[in-house]
Amino acid sequence: MITGLYTDRYELAMAEVYWREGRADVPVVFDYFFRTLPYKGGFAIFAGAQTLVEALESFRFGNDELGFLRREGFDPDFLEFLRKFRFRGSIWMPLEGEIIFPVEPIARVEGGLLEVQIIESLLLNILNFQTLIATKAARCCLAARGRTVAEFGLRRAQGLASRWATRAAMIGGCVSTSNLDAAAWYGLRTAGTMAHSFVQSYESELEAFRSFAAVHGPETVLLLDTYDTLRSGLPNALIVARELAVRGIRLAGVRIDSGDLAYQSRAVRNAFDAASFPDIKIIVSNQLDEYIIRSLLEQGAPIDVFGVGTALVTGHPDGAVDGVYKLAVCNGKPKMKRADGLAKQTLPGRKVVSRYIDQEGWIRADAIHLYDESPPTLMVDPYDPTRKIKLGGLRPEPLLRLVVKEGEVVGPLLDIKAAAAYAKERLQCLPPEHKRFENPHIYDVGISPGLAALRDKLITEMMNGA
Amino acid sequence: MITGLYTDRYELAMAEVYWREGRADVPVVFDYFFRTLPYKGGFAIFAGAQTLVEALESFRFGNDELGFLRREGFDPDFLEFLRKFRFRGSIWMPLEGEIIFPVEPIARVEGGLLEVQIIESLLLNILNFQTLIATKAARCCLAARGRTVAEFGLRRAQGLASRWATRAAMIGGCVSTSNLDAAAWYGLRTAGTMAHSFVQSYESELEAFRSFAAVHGPETVLLLDTYDTLRSGLPNALIVARELAVRGIRLAGVRIDSGDLAYQSRAVRNAFDAASFPDIKIIVSNQLDEYIIRSLLEQGAPIDVFGVGTALVTGHPDGAVDGVYKLAVCNGKPKMKRADGLAKQTLPGRKVVSRYIDQEGWIRADAIHLYDESPPTLMVDPYDPTRKIKLGGLRPEPLLRLVVKEGEVVGPLLDIKAAAAYAKERLQCLPPEHKRFENPHIYDVGISPGLAALRDKLITEMMNGA
Repeated sequence: MITGLYTDRYELAMAEVYWREGRADVPVVFDYFFRTLPYKGGFAIFAGAQTLVEALESFRFGNDELGFLRREGFDPDFLEFLRKFRFRGSIWMPLEGEIIFPVEPIARVEGGLLEVQIIESLLLNILNFQTLIATKAARCCLAARGRTVAEFGLRRAQGLASRWATRAAMIGGCVSTSNLDAAAWYGLRTAGTMAHSFVQSYESELEAFRSFAAVHGPETVLLLDTYDTLRSGLPNALIVARELAVRGIRLAGVRIDSGDLAYQSRAVRNAFDAASFPDIKIIVSNQLDEYIIRSLLEQGAPIDVFGVGTALVTGHPDGAVDGVYKLAVCNGKPKMKRADGLAKQTLPGRKVVSRYIDQEGWIRADAIHLYDESPPTLMVDPYDPTRKIKLGGLRPEPLLRLVVKEGEVVGPLLDIKAAAAYAKERLQCLPPEHKRFENPHIYDVGISPGLAALRDKLITEMMNGA
Repeated sequence: MITGLYTDRYELAMAEVYWREGRADVPVVFDYFFRTLPYKGGFAIFAGAQTLVEALESFRFGNDELGFLRREGFDPDFLEFLRKFRFRGSIWMPLEGEIIFPVEPIARVEGGLLEVQIIESLLLNILNFQTLIATKAARCCLAARGRTVAEFGLRRAQGLASRWATRAAMIGGCVSTSNLDAAAWYGLRTAGTMAHSFVQSYESELEAFRSFAAVHGPETVLLLDTYDTLRSGLPNALIVARELAVRGIRLAGVRIDSGDLAYQSRAVRNAFDAASFPDIKIIVSNQLDEYIIRSLLEQGAPIDVFGVGTALVTGHPDGAVDGVYKLAVCNGKPKMKRADGLAKQTLPGRKVVSRYIDQEGWIRADAIHLYDESPPTLMVDPYDPTRKIKLGGLRPEPLLRLVVKEGEVVGPLLDIKAAAAYAKERLQCLPPEHKRFENPHIYDVGISPGLAALRDKLITEMMNGA
């Protein structure tokens, strides 16, 4: 589905100028970074690298695409150039599942001016969205404290966003999805129960439950709240659980989709336990998010699986990660966008990120520094140059790895399962104060003294030039 | 891209039961409706009908899909049944671009139990999202009071959501898009300028502007805020505008992407007017939404084009329209979901919606009534049965039209341009009090006395049965 047209018109408008002037191959460095953590949270989970690499493969211009661009008024000779286009630049990124923070480069892209520019919209579209959803999933899973979070969002996903939403949700820690399209595409575990309409389509709820169990046996999950969870759904589920037990089959679970989930789940758990069905799982759904999950567990609700839909797959209440893609070096010269105040400035130069780990294995700070600098032992707050942060006694690790080298995939790309495991492992190394939902402690991201000096120098030059 | 797997697992789990029991063809009616207007607004714009109809065409099960379902444990005989599946039901919907309201059926789907059930996730995924975005676009266009709104959202769209987001944005009133993929797919008008990186990649801003103008001539739009909008961007744009004028070419416009857009746009307009360039358009962007557009125009900002991105294509701050799909009739019997209180109940029976127009052409009220009832002259508030609403002197029109009849497209489907024109026309007939952003007047949607009586009867029956 992704072709070279998966871009904004202005990318090709700029590219045509570069091509015309023979500047397509001017060497450049662009940085992808974001300024604000989603959900007023303390961290984000990086996702989308594999998708980006695959999309770059198909980001080409065939006859259909070139015909469209011809009609759009692009120069035919430029279009013949595009016919041969493929991305031959290099990309450094973290592993998927990595914890990431604002300001620091999350992807560094190097190559010719034209190729590095025109992948901007594609890269932003993929990484902004998958990072948004992986982060939301991780928050839901943190709130669930080891209980299962299942992704149930297809019907409320933003249209075709559903496939990548599911992918990112799994990286963030979801265990299964209801979305068969995404499951088939990525080889994911699926889960599903029944709808209220199923129950209503029978003369009685009990008949509906029996019919479902007759076909699905040990995979049966019964929906309790079509008529009345505790007075109708629960007793009927108990009847079916006993009927299955006679045949040596265990009822897998029940789902509650409305009403007071804490109160009802307790009553259902008690009834199943009293009837010697301690293994029947309780699944809940209905407008869940990380806050409701947390609240339910704080109330001691005996819930086994949280089915999360809308808020998870749309990243509500956020619509997007505010990631941007900015020129850092052009033809050997460091570049930065001047803006009023430090908050909107970009960081110049070819940069790397070192992550600092303490002796107990906690992730403590990230330093952005120039490529040819060693990891610094002191860094400066990027927004407050008077604030210095010492990094003594901490062990630096590189955050970014070479994933694409001159157009070829060379670097580590984790599959979804491995990325999910990596996210889980890394979150365990992130101090808890960064993981709380309310006013999380701000993780230290700084710039090296060398980078700060380069930035100051460029600001001075620009002020003198203006 | 859409196959029969574009669904939730539970749809096929239910379908397998229906198939096994020989109930696939039990005649049913399902309603699609939503409960809450997006954005705390007073109306929504319906979109997605054409997309749904196309998706239903490809909602089939081929070897790849069946192989996946086989591995997922579905019965091989059921899968052979699915191999021959295609939707042969009927769908009634409004025209795309129609104004719609909560509670009323927006789509009525009739057919066999199995086919009508398994398209649920697909239908919800498409209509919920496109309606969300078309509504957002309409709000931005209302705020823009006739000025142009351009869709610039690809980089912040929720991944592959971008194509449908652009489609729906155009139905809601956007005039152009930056998204080449969507433009090629749907035949839309594109627009684009340049990035800050373009300007930075040259030795000077003036050189960058000249280079762009040399290639793009009368389509040139210059980005003013890379260094300093008023001290650098504006004087350089004036130089290029004069150079183009000498060659008989008019500079198309300038874009401002940061800073105080009201103040800067006035200064830029004044400078261009003073230099006898009254036709150069001023385009602004940077985290716009309907509220910022309104504020800018209230300040008298002389802006010609608003480029709206994130908020438009993600529907921020809402993530989704809360549309649901509920069983209304099964095998000739009216059905409703019982819930605690009226707010979560569904409306039973085969229903239609009549829209009432007054003598001046204003849209005044919608009545939901039973298919075999005439449009009522009195209706009841669905949430407050004691509140009656008189419909005397108003002319009823049917809201829903037969679009798909027994699997074949028979009904009116507007193309995007026609749907946009229809939305514009209908919004002009909606009284202004429903269009304001703060506490809009609630549009009257009621149920006929006959439908109210049917609902009461079913509630009584269920209470007696419970």
